[in-house]
Amino acid sequence: MNDISVIKRVYLDFAAATPLLPAAKAAMLPFLTDDFGNPSAVHAEGKRARMAIEEARADIARAVHVRPEFITFTGGGTEGNVLALIGTIEYLHQTGRAYGDMEIVTTAIEHPSILRTVENLQKRGVMVRTVSVDEVGLVNLNHLHELLTPQTVLCSVAYANSEIGVVQPLHSIAQLLKKAERRFGTTILLHVDAAQASLWLSCHFDTLGADLVVLDASKCCGPKGVGVLVRSRRVQLASVLFGGGQEQGLRPGTENVAGIVGACVAISWAQADWRTRAEQVRLVQDEAISLLREAIPFACLNGPRGEERIANNINISIPGLDTEYAAVWLDSRGFAVSTKSACAGAGSGESVVVKTISGDTARASATLRFTLGPATTIHDMKLLISELASHITMMSEVRGEEIMVA
Amino acid sequence: MNDISVIKRVYLDFAAATPLLPAAKAAMLPFLTDDFGNPSAVHAEGKRARMAIEEARADIARAVHVRPEFITFTGGGTEGNVLALIGTIEYLHQTGRAYGDMEIVTTAIEHPSILRTVENLQKRGVMVRTVSVDEVGLVNLNHLHELLTPQTVLCSVAYANSEIGVVQPLHSIAQLLKKAERRFGTTILLHVDAAQASLWLSCHFDTLGADLVVLDASKCCGPKGVGVLVRSRRVQLASVLFGGGQEQGLRPGTENVAGIVGACVAISWAQADWRTRAEQVRLVQDEAISLLREAIPFACLNGPRGEERIANNINISIPGLDTEYAAVWLDSRGFAVSTKSACAGAGSGESVVVKTISGDTARASATLRFTLGPATTIHDMKLLISELASHITMMSEVRGEEIMVA
Repeated sequence: MNDISVIKRVYLDFAAATPLLPAAKAAMLPFLTDDFGNPSAVHAEGKRARMAIEEARADIARAVHVRPEFITFTGGGTEGNVLALIGTIEYLHQTGRAYGDMEIVTTAIEHPSILRTVENLQKRGVMVRTVSVDEVGLVNLNHLHELLTPQTVLCSVAYANSEIGVVQPLHSIAQLLKKAERRFGTTILLHVDAAQASLWLSCHFDTLGADLVVLDASKCCGPKGVGVLVRSRRVQLASVLFGGGQEQGLRPGTENVAGIVGACVAISWAQADWRTRAEQVRLVQDEAISLLREAIPFACLNGPRGEERIANNINISIPGLDTEYAAVWLDSRGFAVSTKSACAGAGSGESVVVKTISGDTARASATLRFTLGPATTIHDMKLLISELASHITMMSEVRGEEIMVA
Repeated sequence: MNDISVIKRVYLDFAAATPLLPAAKAAMLPFLTDDFGNPSAVHAEGKRARMAIEEARADIARAVHVRPEFITFTGGGTEGNVLALIGTIEYLHQTGRAYGDMEIVTTAIEHPSILRTVENLQKRGVMVRTVSVDEVGLVNLNHLHELLTPQTVLCSVAYANSEIGVVQPLHSIAQLLKKAERRFGTTILLHVDAAQASLWLSCHFDTLGADLVVLDASKCCGPKGVGVLVRSRRVQLASVLFGGGQEQGLRPGTENVAGIVGACVAISWAQADWRTRAEQVRLVQDEAISLLREAIPFACLNGPRGEERIANNINISIPGLDTEYAAVWLDSRGFAVSTKSACAGAGSGESVVVKTISGDTARASATLRFTLGPATTIHDMKLLISELASHITMMSEVRGEEIMVA
């Protein structure tokens, strides 16, 4: 045991949670101290809170290139996704369209907040069509084209997959939908779960081609409990929660002022610098993937390489290894890693995402996900790879198996 | 103009928002700094976050006398109420009961998060029966008895009304429901919106007789954006949001760890001391009501006096006065007051609550609500009353009317 290696923690679970940006915390503190007013109140305390929220909305609007009135603050990314999907379908339903006359297209590798929501809509009678993805998780565009019908009202894909980091070709998807809209004379909204994107990819709404984009402050160094739903002028939503008229009635309840202010600082910061940040971390990602392959030849990379992969994600399978235990062991050695999406449940079996792209249960049951942060170095990754290789050797020896490491 | 009176702000809108307890803020800070992990992650960062949430759950459970597994953290009081109502009905619906075979009983003076949710359930086909309230807002128990049928599945009343402060006779209501349950051989759940209660009334779940109780941290000196839904073992809920398995699947999405920890400190503090706090503020309330009546004889109190009124609420109507403007004017003189519930919308016309209890539009259009805090003094209230009386005199003179003040 080398105690030096555990003195410094190496946090490699940025897809699950990120440290709060000091500037975001600083911006929040007044609203956790003197500026505690309810933004709906008419007095000075209320007006300061209202102004803070509307300034945050304007700042985020500038950061993602959209008008402020098309931004809704929610209680998190999950709530944003649920509001986008159920809100769209329920609005159409309430304006006279039967559930059975509506179809949604999505993939089998989406985040649980999409998969479970779509299941719920299916129970209401909406037809759900699952577009296939290839062996690295990219949407099969030909199949998407085939699945679109005059009943298709919504297509939902993640910008970057939370487990394997595949970045979907949003432009091609949007173009396909536009073509189908012209063919059928219908409207097909494109919903993009961008929770994993804002630190590493442009979320400029005007260039994404989407109608509904969901950001999650907690995934880009903002506070937990704040999501941002951006929508185009084509979108009309029913609310999922009911109460006061806050957020144009789309998210009733007293606004989480401090959280919204912190989210604004984090998202603005994330988007201002995404390209430099992504370029830097991609160098680390690239080298680390190469080193991993050398050190652990049995390991296979899940998801694509290059620009089709988000810059901070490395997801490997080591068939035969108990990676849940490996994650726990790595933790004891100072490395915070995961096996899959935190929302998909720790320690609950195989990765649905990897099973879908590979069809391989052994591979899906033996995933390890390293999601890097802006400050992750290749030195950090070398330490990790060395520890992981030792662990595999140790486990192989324990089990009397052939050693899998180089 | 007496500039001295505006130097110190007198904040009298505790029903809308409360200052964050310093101890709550202190407890939150580590989770806005180093302890940023995702509670669903297996590593040390995740485990610290998980432990913080489960300790908060256990502490709140102790504070309100319930087992921790019956506590669900939500994104606020509104979300808690929506989950309680829709969750109950949807669970029953999903287990085979037709919407048309279910009835809800509630009042017309509930918070918008109840009124709008119940309207939504009505659209799904649920029958909603409105129990009458008397001239101070108390539930008419005879009418409630008459409204209960073998189809009644849920009764929803606020513990303390957010506008007029009436405290409902929860024990009598619970007893009535129990009797009806025996008569019909059915289950009738009692849902209590306790958002306004926790600073001033016991929220001990074991003595309330309710099945679903919703607390809102932001109304008892905790952070905004955290609600607590407490349920009995008789309750089974469907979720309203869909995603990961957080909060037993009832509130998917990464937990707002800092907010939950802050909510715990605030709710525990509020409940530890509610009686002393209420006794102290009631002295101020009583004297202020008497002084108001002397200074402004035309003013009428909305809601009851004595124990049937929550200790910190004073709600008056001054027919003929533009109280929206009075609130703005008082604000300029250093007093933060409101006309009605912030969630009912500032500046949006008459109070539904006061219209319901009085049947009087003039009275409902001229409400002023003063909701006191633990540190509000009779001196604060005397200053307020003096300013209000001056304002009324001024407005009467402007309009050439008879002076309404004594």
